[in-house]
Amino acid sequence: MKRIGVYTSGGDAPGMNAAIRAVVRVSIAQNLEVYGITAGYLGMLENEMNPLQLRDMANIIQRGGTILKTARSTEMMKPEGRTKAATNLKNLGIDALVCIGGDGSFRGAHALWEEHQIPIVGVPGTIDNDIFGSDKTIGFDTAVNTALEAIDRIRDTAASHDRLFIVEVMGRNSGFIASYVGLAGGAEEIFTPENVASVDKSIERIKESIRRGKTSSILITAEGQKPGRAYDLADAIRKKSGMDAKVCILGHQQRGGSPTAADRILASRMGAAAVDALMHGQCDIMIGTEGERLVQVPLDLVTKNEKKTQMDLLSLASVLAT
Amino acid sequence: MKRIGVYTSGGDAPGMNAAIRAVVRVSIAQNLEVYGITAGYLGMLENEMNPLQLRDMANIIQRGGTILKTARSTEMMKPEGRTKAATNLKNLGIDALVCIGGDGSFRGAHALWEEHQIPIVGVPGTIDNDIFGSDKTIGFDTAVNTALEAIDRIRDTAASHDRLFIVEVMGRNSGFIASYVGLAGGAEEIFTPENVASVDKSIERIKESIRRGKTSSILITAEGQKPGRAYDLADAIRKKSGMDAKVCILGHQQRGGSPTAADRILASRMGAAAVDALMHGQCDIMIGTEGERLVQVPLDLVTKNEKKTQMDLLSLASVLAT
Amino acid sequence: MKRIGVYTSGGDAPGMNAAIRAVVRVSIAQNLEVYGITAGYLGMLENEMNPLQLRDMANIIQRGGTILKTARSTEMMKPEGRTKAATNLKNLGIDALVCIGGDGSFRGAHALWEEHQIPIVGVPGTIDNDIFGSDKTIGFDTAVNTALEAIDRIRDTAASHDRLFIVEVMGRNSGFIASYVGLAGGAEEIFTPENVASVDKSIERIKESIRRGKTSSILITAEGQKPGRAYDLADAIRKKSGMDAKVCILGHQQRGGSPTAADRILASRMGAAAVDALMHGQCDIMIGTEGERLVQVPLDLVTKNEKKTQMDLLSLASVLAT
Amino acid sequence: MKRIGVYTSGGDAPGMNAAIRAVVRVSIAQNLEVYGITAGYLGMLENEMNPLQLRDMANIIQRGGTILKTARSTEMMKPEGRTKAATNLKNLGIDALVCIGGDGSFRGAHALWEEHQIPIVGVPGTIDNDIFGSDKTIGFDTAVNTALEAIDRIRDTAASHDRLFIVEVMGRNSGFIASYVGLAGGAEEIFTPENVASVDKSIERIKESIRRGKTSSILITAEGQKPGRAYDLADAIRKKSGMDAKVCILGHQQRGGSPTAADRILASRMGAAAVDALMHGQCDIMIGTEGERLVQVPLDLVTKNEKKTQMDLLSLASVLAT
Repeated sequence: MKRIGVYTSGGDAPGMNAAIRAVVRVSIAQNLEVYGITAGYLGMLENEMNPLQLRDMANIIQRGGTILKTARSTEMMKPEGRTKAATNLKNLGIDALVCIGGDGSFRGAHALWEEHQIPIVGVPGTIDNDIFGSDKTIGFDTAVNTALEAIDRIRDTAASHDRLFIVEVMGRNSGFIASYVGLAGGAEEIFTPENVASVDKSIERIKESIRRGKTSSILITAEGQKPGRAYDLADAIRKKSGMDAKVCILGHQQRGGSPTAADRILASRMGAAAVDALMHGQCDIMIGTEGERLVQVPLDLVTKNEKKTQMDLLSLASVLAT
Repeated sequence: MKRIGVYTSGGDAPGMNAAIRAVVRVSIAQNLEVYGITAGYLGMLENEMNPLQLRDMANIIQRGGTILKTARSTEMMKPEGRTKAATNLKNLGIDALVCIGGDGSFRGAHALWEEHQIPIVGVPGTIDNDIFGSDKTIGFDTAVNTALEAIDRIRDTAASHDRLFIVEVMGRNSGFIASYVGLAGGAEEIFTPENVASVDKSIERIKESIRRGKTSSILITAEGQKPGRAYDLADAIRKKSGMDAKVCILGHQQRGGSPTAADRILASRMGAAAVDALMHGQCDIMIGTEGERLVQVPLDLVTKNEKKTQMDLLSLASVLAT
Repeated sequence: MKRIGVYTSGGDAPGMNAAIRAVVRVSIAQNLEVYGITAGYLGMLENEMNPLQLRDMANIIQRGGTILKTARSTEMMKPEGRTKAATNLKNLGIDALVCIGGDGSFRGAHALWEEHQIPIVGVPGTIDNDIFGSDKTIGFDTAVNTALEAIDRIRDTAASHDRLFIVEVMGRNSGFIASYVGLAGGAEEIFTPENVASVDKSIERIKESIRRGKTSSILITAEGQKPGRAYDLADAIRKKSGMDAKVCILGHQQRGGSPTAADRILASRMGAAAVDALMHGQCDIMIGTEGERLVQVPLDLVTKNEKKTQMDLLSLASVLAT
Repeated sequence: MKRIGVYTSGGDAPGMNAAIRAVVRVSIAQNLEVYGITAGYLGMLENEMNPLQLRDMANIIQRGGTILKTARSTEMMKPEGRTKAATNLKNLGIDALVCIGGDGSFRGAHALWEEHQIPIVGVPGTIDNDIFGSDKTIGFDTAVNTALEAIDRIRDTAASHDRLFIVEVMGRNSGFIASYVGLAGGAEEIFTPENVASVDKSIERIKESIRRGKTSSILITAEGQKPGRAYDLADAIRKKSGMDAKVCILGHQQRGGSPTAADRILASRMGAAAVDALMHGQCDIMIGTEGERLVQVPLDLVTKNEKKTQMDLLSLASVLAT
């Protein structure tokens, strides 16, 4: 192995640059050449791949987004697309790949290995934290802290006006951001895709807390299948209880921003471990975490299983918000 | 004058606590007693008014929201409501008032003076900065910086995905937040209530910038008459150009948060000046700023005139975002 | 068990309030009464202990510092002091204690159990992360992020001036903050108490990186036995190489500030687990973390062992900063 | 005029990049070419000057530091140095200059005009705000907010431990940062170079506030002639009163970081105005602010006069911190 390629794919996540930096610098320290592939699979298909040097990595560890850009590609879902990508990679002499991304990206990576024997190691980068096989994904800690700052601000105005707020956070099919942010933000109720708390019960709880002297409340909801779920909730609450709820949808700001220390460290460790794994002949795996330790998980397992949100955080949040 | 009352009214704004602190501490230093009136005019009507001491002001200068709470009252719009409020104030021996709020609050304050001769000095507190007679209002600088942080984050993800974003900031009838945030955030286009930039022209500009190599763009819009205007804009752009624009509505997080240095200093100076004015027998005025200086403006003038957004910021932003 | 006491002791750490809130709310949910003991052991000795209610915990989860205050007490190191404290606790009917603090605090707690059979559960709260038996302590994540923000800012000015900076972070006897911040901040060299990198080797590395085109560098050092070590380092570098190094000592700002999401969640979980443990008759233990899981560790083990910094982070940082 | 040069000089300040961006984009919009001069006068002397394009300005408005780098040059203080610089500029066809920096930089600029007739317009960029002729300088607002965040954090730990803190902020010969931060941070005492509050009086005030129930205090001092003045103050207080004061020196972190909205807007307006002025044949002036308005001030006046700190902020802070 002489030359590896690195790319980011799927939704961007803070810390991806720290991972790229680790891949590049560890590779060069091991006398490997590294190519940066632009915009994920698109760059493979369109031959947008360029050598990266030590100096290109200067001053990026603290930047949000991804300097390699990212995109979703439908062409790579078809065998012909993957054949074209594999040919391009081979023409450039790229022997192996590090793929930083989520579920969908890993499916493409796994197929490239299966069909074209290109060794790939995956690094989980997504703010949603919904990747099976890793306790934490790159970007999750930053997204949670960004959402939390917004909620701390919203609590100021909720308390000043004695108001009820519904805050919608990201997390299409998963409730990780919602449950972490809800617990850390002292939310009165947390609605996740897995735990669709009943609206009636929530109204009851809010009324009960008003009786105890609490004058403002914040409910957190994951966006679910599409953004805007918070509006439906507000409507339901209004109809059933007459209570007026203000809606805030935090949206894409949760994707950006300078990564937290935890995300930079996680990304650095994972990026380094990915290169190490390739150097030791391993592939078709993802680097994950189990507690503080790094682990290796077959990509197949990663993409075929679903990671569940911790329900214990939800019940703890419920006790603590009384 | 022996006893004054202080209240916050209308939408809350970061820095209101710093203003309350200044009113209370300067008053006590002048041997005045101070009563805090809860939730603005509601507290006057319902006799929720309590003495404030030096120690009650400890550790609040950095807090968002308002410890006195705030609300809107329809009863105070009627003469009977104001008679009731005036009677309650006189029964408590409150000789004068400091009103921290916006336009609507000042209308009530002016009426209390006209109808019941209760001396009042106004302090402009609103994130919208739309008060005639003052270059800056308390809370504006904080709101602009909060929105700007969100936009910096959104730019990370816009750049990573080569996307077009429309970000909606607060400012019902005024474009102050939009124009400051747009200029400071390097926005490609700024839509304000006063300056409804044509969608066609914007599309033209965006296409032009894409030709010059810019791959992502951020448009800022003030919320206008009601939140959600950004969605209409996105629809219009999609229909007319086929470009897909993501929408972010920043919402109520812009109201909260620890005030910036500028807002704390402005609030401290204005609160102190309000008490000074009352001590010198002045009333029915608002404390405003003209550049770095504090000025006094008759409440009547304040409420009857409209403050215009600086159009020069918009044209500067337009040149700089090329 | 009917009544428990909770106190914070030793250096304050962001997240202590979230832990107090969890102890109080979980206790009350279990029909226990809770007393807050002011300023740690001082409050026990001087009978400063007061009942806490649900509402006292409102709006504190996001506050830095500790609402119960904290202090160090020499009197509690003597048996007579502990006898006095135990008597005071028994007079108030306090059956058990939750101690939020560090090593020294746990020694006192362990002695109170051994000598006076007062059941105690410890919760590790210290920014230093140097408590044996827990991967993470409350406040560490916040302190690391606070230091990291400062370093990101310092890098701006280092890069603009092509300068060498030495930044001293907290961590008297331990290198946790230094190694996390150094790795996350892209520091060129990290000096910890356990790993006294040789100054000569560092100078060599810096010169080497200058040859490769790097024009500015940041070195991180833990404060060691007393603050100011960074000045000695700067002197040594100046003498040996003629290079001028600017010194920044981050100091006590690392102790304060609103806790991060991770610290609030950790504190909430640990506070709840401490009450649970007491309810189940366990005591003389500390709640710790092992990866994502909570564990129980005998206080005796905690205070008699030393936790080592991860050396792998240092070597990773070294590779990545090339 | 066909080609202008732009450079940053002296200490770096957040917002300098926004000013460079404005100079470049407004120039290009006016069909001027722009050269970026590296590291201020050093770049002129060593011919480090390169053309800048629209795209080079992408994504820099939010960055701290200066992409053009900065330095201090002793050679430019001598006539021979300036002759060399002027020759280099003329060889490159650079007709005019925009100098972003402080007092010392403007002296060099003024001399280049006087001796070599190179038209120069100055833009005040320094965190110290100590430039005569401008109410505000680029970077001041950001530095004040950075210091304020640190002080808010320190207050958490001061309050938790009932401690006295002395915080040293930047500002060699001027008390602007100290007075703004002190007022906004609720400091109990502010020591500036112009207002050397007596230590005895301060001790008296602190003791008095302890009697009134205040248990922690923060004193702010400007660094004065050299950093470390806070240690002398702490010693004096200890000797005279026995009170133990903790010292924090905020240092160079105050120079960096993403600029606030106010600094980005100020820098954008000033950069644009500087090019406009050159286009209208004006030179040997600095762009300054008077309240909200931009003004032009002869460089000669700027460098020969001293700007005084507002003493009214100090007396207000003193009343409000009771």
